[in-house]
This record gives sequence, C-alpha cells and structure tokens, in this order.
Amino acid sequence: MNQFVFHNPTKVIFGQGCISNIGEELARAGFRKILLTAGGGSIRKNGVYSQVVASLGEAGVEWEEFWGITPNPDLAKVRAGVEAARACKAEALLSVGGGSVIDATKAMAAGCREDDIWAFIAQSIPVHDALPHFTVLTISATGSEMNPFAVVTNEAELKKWPLIGPALFPRVTIIDPSVQLSLPWQQTVNGAVDAISHVLEFYFLGSDQETTLAIDEALLRTVIKAAEALREDPADLAQRSNLAWAATLALNGLSGAQFDGGDWTSHTLEHAVSALHPEVAHGAGLAVLFPAWIAQVHPQHSAIFDRWARNVFGATDANAGLEALVATYHRWGAPLTLGELGLTREEIPTLVELATQGRRVGRVALLEPHEVRAIYERAF
Amino acid sequence: MNQFVFHNPTKVIFGQGCISNIGEELARAGFRKILLTAGGGSIRKNGVYSQVVASLGEAGVEWEEFWGITPNPDLAKVRAGVEAARACKAEALLSVGGGSVIDATKAMAAGCREDDIWAFIAQSIPVHDALPHFTVLTISATGSEMNPFAVVTNEAELKKWPLIGPALFPRVTIIDPSVQLSLPWQQTVNGAVDAISHVLEFYFLGSDQETTLAIDEALLRTVIKAAEALREDPADLAQRSNLAWAATLALNGLSGAQFDGGDWTSHTLEHAVSALHPEVAHGAGLAVLFPAWIAQVHPQHSAIFDRWARNVFGATDANAGLEALVATYHRWGAPLTLGELGLTREEIPTLVELATQGRRVGRVALLEPHEVRAIYERAF
Repeated sequence: MNQFVFHNPTKVIFGQGCISNIGEELARAGFRKILLTAGGGSIRKNGVYSQVVASLGEAGVEWEEFWGITPNPDLAKVRAGVEAARACKAEALLSVGGGSVIDATKAMAAGCREDDIWAFIAQSIPVHDALPHFTVLTISATGSEMNPFAVVTNEAELKKWPLIGPALFPRVTIIDPSVQLSLPWQQTVNGAVDAISHVLEFYFLGSDQETTLAIDEALLRTVIKAAEALREDPADLAQRSNLAWAATLALNGLSGAQFDGGDWTSHTLEHAVSALHPEVAHGAGLAVLFPAWIAQVHPQHSAIFDRWARNVFGATDANAGLEALVATYHRWGAPLTLGELGLTREEIPTLVELATQGRRVGRVALLEPHEVRAIYERAF
Repeated sequence: MNQFVFHNPTKVIFGQGCISNIGEELARAGFRKILLTAGGGSIRKNGVYSQVVASLGEAGVEWEEFWGITPNPDLAKVRAGVEAARACKAEALLSVGGGSVIDATKAMAAGCREDDIWAFIAQSIPVHDALPHFTVLTISATGSEMNPFAVVTNEAELKKWPLIGPALFPRVTIIDPSVQLSLPWQQTVNGAVDAISHVLEFYFLGSDQETTLAIDEALLRTVIKAAEALREDPADLAQRSNLAWAATLALNGLSGAQFDGGDWTSHTLEHAVSALHPEVAHGAGLAVLFPAWIAQVHPQHSAIFDRWARNVFGATDANAGLEALVATYHRWGAPLTLGELGLTREEIPTLVELATQGRRVGRVALLEPHEVRAIYERAF
C-alpha cells in the first residue's frame, strides 16, 4: 500500500450563473488590478466575456487583456504574457477559456516570479512560487482548472512538456456548464476523451486500491453516459453539468490518489504527435493512441484490464472492453487512426524519438523504444 | 441543477508510517508550541502517542497535553480545553484520536478565538476564525479529519448539535491505516456504518446528478466490500486503507457536491438518542435509525431508492435493498433495535421533542413530529 498526499486547495464555484462571482472573489482576495487572458475570441460569442467584465467592473477590479492564446500553447506566447503582466503591474491573472488558456496562464503566473520558465519544464523543477491565478472555465476537458499541472509547447525544439508544482493550483475556478451548451460536438467529444484518458492513466496501475478503482469506474461510466446523452440532446444542462464535474474530478488528485502518480505513456505519445502537428486536438490524438496502447499492453496485465472491461462496459474481458471503447469513440465521431489526423507512417521514427528520447517509458508496462514504435504502428 | 462550492483545503497525508511527518508539518508552518489533545489513552497502547511525540521532539516542537476527551464530547470539556490552550499559549492544536477528539478540538480551536462557543452552535453561526488545528486520525468513521464540521453535546441541556464553518477544516491530517489494524471489530463496524450513513444522507436527494450519484455508489460498495474483507481478516492492510480513505471521502464535500447540502434526518434522530444516552456509539445508533428512516420514507420516493438498491446491492427494488442493508448490518453484529441499545419505548416522546423541537425536519421527506415518532417506533 502506497503512501500518498492529497492536497487540493482550489475553490471551485460550479453552476449556471456563477460567473458573476468572479469579480467579488478577486476583490475579496485583495486584488485590484489583474490581467485577463484569453484565446481566439470564442468567449465574445458565447457571452462569457461580457459576464466576466461586468462582474469585474461591479467589484471595482481593474483589468488589462491578453488575447490570442492558441491550443497547444507555445513558450513564446507564455513569455509575451509574462511581459504583459509585468507591464500592467498585474496583481493576479484571470484566465477565461479552456485548458490551453489556463495552462498558458499557469506558466505565465510562474514566469512572473521566475525568470526562465523553460528551465523549470526542461529540468522538471516543481513550481513553488507564482502570481495568484483565477480561472473561468469554458470547456471541460483537461482538468487544469483544479490541478497543479500545465503543458507548454516549445515549438522551436518540438517539445510539448509538463510544468508542475503546488503554486500552479488556481486559487478560484468558476465552472458554469451552461456556457458549454453551445460547444460543437467534436469539442465535447475531445473533452470527454481527454477526461476518460486522464482516469485511465491512473486506473491500470490499480490492483487492490478498491476506493480509487471504484471511483474511477464511476467517473468513466459517468463521462460515457453524459456524452451519450449530449449526443442525443446537446442542450441537456444536467448532463452537461455531470460531464463538467466528472472531467474536473478526473485530474484533480482524486482519480489517482492511491496510485502514487500515473502511467502517462499515452499522453507522452500524444504530446509527440501534437508537438509535430500542433493542429491536432489533444483529445483527438488520445482517442487514437490510448486504445493502441491498451492493445499493446493488456495481454501482460489481464487482471486489471479484465476488471475495467467488466465494470465500465459490462464486457467479458479486456479484448471485449477494448472493442467497446473503440466502438464508443467511433460512435462519437472521434478519429480512429493517425492517418485520419493527417500523419504519415514516415513520421513514426520522429514520433518515437520525441516520445522516448531514446529511453524506456511507462509504469504499467515499461516500454522499450521499439515497443513504443509498435504502438504508433498499431495507430495507423 | 444546483450551484455548489467545493473548497476543501485540508492536506491529507495517508499511508503506513506517515505519522512521523507530523512534527515537520507543524514546524514548517511555523508553530513551535502546541497543545496535544487526546481521549482516554488508547493511543498509548497502539503506539500512536509515542510516534507523535517522537516526531514533535525531532522537529523541535514543544507541546502540552490535554487528555480525557470522551465520545459525544461535552461542552464543559471543550471549555476546559480552551483554558488549557490559553494557559500554555498554544499556537496550534494537535488532536490525536478519532472523531470525538477531533470534533472537541475543532470546538476548542474556535473557542480560543471566540468567547461563547455555544452561541455559535445554538445560533448556527459559521466559524470564520479559529486556532490552526492539525490531526492524527486513529479511527476512520466521522470524516471530521477532512471537513469543517464538529458535533458537541451540551449535557446540561440534552443537546447534541453541530458547529460548522470554514475555519474548522484541519490544516493537515495524518491517516495511517495500519494503526487501525488492532481496532475491536465493533469499532470497525461503527465506523463503516457512520461512513455509509454520511453518503446516504446526501444520496437520496439525487435525481439526475449522475457524477455524484455514481461516486456515492462507488463509496457505498467500497465500504461494504472493505468491511466484509476485514471481518474475514482484520489484519488486511489494503482493505483497512480502502475503508479509511472511503470514510474520509464520505464526508469531505465530494459525496454531496451536486446536492446542495444533505438531508441529515437520521443523524438528527441519532443525536437525540445519544444526547439522552451518551453511552450509545454514534455508528450503533445510525445502524438502527437509518434503516427505520428508509422504511418510512422510500414508498413516496421510489425512483432513487430503487436505483440505490440496484446499484449498491444488486437488488430488485427499494424493499429488497433495505433488506440487504439490514442483513449486512446484522451480519456485522450491529444492533438492529433501540431496545438493544438500552432504550425504552417510554423515551419516545422525549426523543421526538429533542429531534424536532416541535418543528418539521428533513429534505428528502419533510417529516412532521408524528412521522418522526413513527420512525422511532419502527426502530424498537
């Protein structure tokens, strides 16, 4: 039985209409001047931006704005954000958007206190100091709104790597699931696949950690059930709420509590894909690569994969569970091969090198580079 | 869909051997002089006390001791504890024990900052200021180690009432499940029943809050599975760990997140019993009263009770689920009637008055005093 620490200080305010709390939360914490960070402008269309600035104005919080954070946010953009925060003497950051906006803003928050943020990423140094960071979430997927992780891409070096540390927990996160009712179906799918993948990165490390295994199965079944309901009726607020809360819990420490960290091989393989192809959505890459990893690994670890198949899909064994997972993703319109994502087999050696750096990866199974290559090949 | 706030800042350090961290946690937070609070002395027998003081000594933390906190802790003891904390100029409190020790220490922590702690209880005023409080848990049951609640008994007024407030969250909680391997079976059962009851106080308010419902079912199944395993082998550390972590999660905000508070009728009925009979263990009272409440209430709310029966016990409907619950408690040796707990039918009017104060109680079903009387009658 492993030791673990569970400590998640983020305050989550959840529910329809709760964006109006953001100004008061900032003001109560003593912040009078902030930098609002955002992506390409979707928050102007779905009404989130106007709710946020109305709340800031009402609470007497001044703000500057920093737009244009893209999916798979790049280090150069993070550095520009640090400059913007310093230029306006921001006392706190407020990210308004999905996982990429939140991740980039976490890196900015750390960068405001530490000069070379890439050194923290490259050397895996935990971040213990950062500017306070508040978030208003607009797409449930990455779980970044309630965890101490960020992923940043160094485009120049083709590296998409994590930044980790207790100072990266958002202080306050607002999740209003009603603003997600207008999301395109493919973004909903990408979010659901991302949440499922987060749980699975922990789950397969399990054996007799019944509490976490049972909670993880509950999260997996819930995400699938909610996504299926939203496929029928995208305006179902109850199911949108269930998907949103489950996606947050999928990577807030709960889903991996008894497992002492996760496996993360599928994420590492996906990060190589999107480092090479920044246009590939993280969830879409995972929909292809996680099943390929399961196919490669499950024969040597049948007990936990059989349990997963039985308790999540009511399937007889791991093979049948894998078929059910792939059928679910197919039914949702997620991609099933790397070819559909625009990759070619010629890129496999580069992917293997980016994912492994020539070393073995993984915990459920410790994979040699040639086994990683076999997973990429399965994914075509 | 209700709005909710999830904010639980307690740091939990979990696992065999982790008691040795307590001194360092206190020292790192800047506390050099503390008051250690405890019960009747079981922590001297199971080795917890010697581990704690060794850790304090090593970290250079000075301490005084306050012993003798009993189950259903009384207001007078809380007030004596406040005096002790003030007399030694304690900068923080460290409770070492089960839920009663932790609850009494929470009330002491609040009492060190507010003069009349009973006023907060009697008038339901939230506690926003308290002395910092660290805990070392020795019995998993109440969940007090990771929540902002305490229950205090005013013996003079026959009132066992809650104290609530954000300042009551412990700063750090240490849970070493291996120290519970020597617990008598009946204490393990009381803890399991308490954890099950906490989840159920929320669960039956559910309808389409799938995320929380599924997590709650996972917790219920896990507590039952772990307790059954411990009945076979009390020294099973993996299952002791599962029971401990599930009991903490049963009342840390997670199990009721989407339900905007709980029902708490069964707890209110039990608090009346143990206000009158302080010798009755909380879990033992709940083992009798919760099934009686379900029997009274489920016919008017069949959908959620049917779901519970199906997903927790694999039973066909609510009646079969209730039978399965009672059979489980019977198999564990828990009491099935108030008579077994030493109560008589003559006490029913007093119990009804203590539980209702002449008003209606409950949320799943809003019960008139005569319906509360019917539940007590069922329980004989």
